[in-house]
Amino acid sequence: MLLHALDFIGTFAFAISGIRLASGKRVDWFGAYIVGLVTAVGGGTLRDMLLNVAPFWMLDGKYFLVTGLALLAALVLKDRLFRLGKALFLFDTIGLGLFTVVGISKSLAANLPFWVCIVMGAITGSVGGLVRDVLLNELPLLLRRDIYALACIIGGLVYFGCRQLQLSPGATELIAASVVIAARVLAVKFHINLPVLNSVEDKHDEQS
Amino acid sequence: MLLHALDFIGTFAFAISGIRLASGKRVDWFGAYIVGLVTAVGGGTLRDMLLNVAPFWMLDGKYFLVTGLALLAALVLKDRLFRLGKALFLFDTIGLGLFTVVGISKSLAANLPFWVCIVMGAITGSVGGLVRDVLLNELPLLLRRDIYALACIIGGLVYFGCRQLQLSPGATELIAASVVIAARVLAVKFHINLPVLNSVEDKHDEQS
Amino acid sequence: MLLHALDFIGTFAFAISGIRLASGKRVDWFGAYIVGLVTAVGGGTLRDMLLNVAPFWMLDGKYFLVTGLALLAALVLKDRLFRLGKALFLFDTIGLGLFTVVGISKSLAANLPFWVCIVMGAITGSVGGLVRDVLLNELPLLLRRDIYALACIIGGLVYFGCRQLQLSPGATELIAASVVIAARVLAVKFHINLPVLNSVEDKHDEQS
Repeated sequence: MLLHALDFIGTFAFAISGIRLASGKRVDWFGAYIVGLVTAVGGGTLRDMLLNVAPFWMLDGKYFLVTGLALLAALVLKDRLFRLGKALFLFDTIGLGLFTVVGISKSLAANLPFWVCIVMGAITGSVGGLVRDVLLNELPLLLRRDIYALACIIGGLVYFGCRQLQLSPGATELIAASVVIAARVLAVKFHINLPVLNSVEDKHDEQS
Repeated sequence: MLLHALDFIGTFAFAISGIRLASGKRVDWFGAYIVGLVTAVGGGTLRDMLLNVAPFWMLDGKYFLVTGLALLAALVLKDRLFRLGKALFLFDTIGLGLFTVVGISKSLAANLPFWVCIVMGAITGSVGGLVRDVLLNELPLLLRRDIYALACIIGGLVYFGCRQLQLSPGATELIAASVVIAARVLAVKFHINLPVLNSVEDKHDEQS
Repeated sequence: MLLHALDFIGTFAFAISGIRLASGKRVDWFGAYIVGLVTAVGGGTLRDMLLNVAPFWMLDGKYFLVTGLALLAALVLKDRLFRLGKALFLFDTIGLGLFTVVGISKSLAANLPFWVCIVMGAITGSVGGLVRDVLLNELPLLLRRDIYALACIIGGLVYFGCRQLQLSPGATELIAASVVIAARVLAVKFHINLPVLNSVEDKHDEQS
């Protein structure tokens, strides 16, 4: 029940983040829907393709409906929705934590080694936003604000730490998702970033 | 026989649309061939990867040959080919209709629910052009001119309407493909478009 | 043993080429790692997805470790690494030759027709660099400097020529990889390029 609610919130928030970026790019309603959908389901779809199983959205139409709700909300609330910066950020981060844990659990069920599961969790959480940025011709945020994918990996390590401690699956998933969320919230709040890779060309680029 | 001819025409037209966009981007002959090929087979390839079956072009080399013919036509006819605007648009639209129906039929054969089949039809018809635009660093046309993917979805709904009416598979496919083609032709002829998603930043963007 | 060393060198060189392009784009360390990783494993991953087998990097963590070493080298050596232009080019070309041959051999083992194997070899060798360029918003090098993918295809044809001559698998792979490497080295050394696809718009584009 709680999981369903969190899945709903995560999908909605990811779809909104896609629609938000699409607005301001001469994209029409249907285009915005597609960007929202791809942001919400892109990571899980790549995970399922790599795992050689049917994409999760084929088995449950709710992801298409939730994306439709997100588009409706964007059309009705307009700029007011996008001004909810902090609430949206929290939703997006909850989605990240949840999707990461879903990705790890699904990979574990496929008997993959733990480090592959962690990679799959990071793919589930972050590839949707990557595809969103590529479709809209932006330099992917993921490459610039590392704490995004890095938070997934920290959460993944905690996930396997909890399993070593023989915690129940439910507790493990809850703790790992919380760590992902906390890592990202703290990183943003305290402006924690990995350094930028420097090069000679970099300085030129900064000026342009 | 007719299906083979339509498949040929659709592949050729999609390849030409890729090569046309590639010209004027300092892309060489082989690069143009690759863009044409990806435009023609990209949608069906993603569909087959999602369906977990071997990509269709592995089983039949003709798609590579038709793309070669498209490159040859582009090299021989040069700008004259690209000035055939209306004929090319019609070819491209025929390809869209045909590819959509092929995608739906192949998904039905895999026993997927009807709404997944419709999504697969739209993927088959429109993802090739999406990849073309991403490779060439353009904001995907699909996101701006909605009647493209929307036509696939309308055709898909008609497809399942025809099945409900117990029409023969051949008639169903013919009608659905015709609806896709008609929807797009009418939308372009009468400038029917979905509204653009507005935002504050949008106005700034329009000026740049 | 030699194969392992060559695989190591190829992965390292491909990762460096990704990290090199990422630097100068306001990408942070982790983002550079991701670009390097995707460059190194992208081609083989698409090949394995098309072949419907588990991605090769799931079975062996060394590709993640080698990419980490490449990032470390880039951080320690900084611009000095990127000034090793010729050595890097040679590494990159060795990687191209090796990856192409690995792709062909893996496809042959899956009983695919020879022309599909050649396509798979080219995908294995060149798609990583394509994804690198798409992620970093560059017009893919592959589309502009044809001898890249074309070298893979020439090597693939030689591969099957050697098989017709009943050469041993080891000799076949060695000769084919050498041909890929030689084709690219000679093309770069003597400035051999396929002509650019011309169009009216092209001339405008050149000036901008």
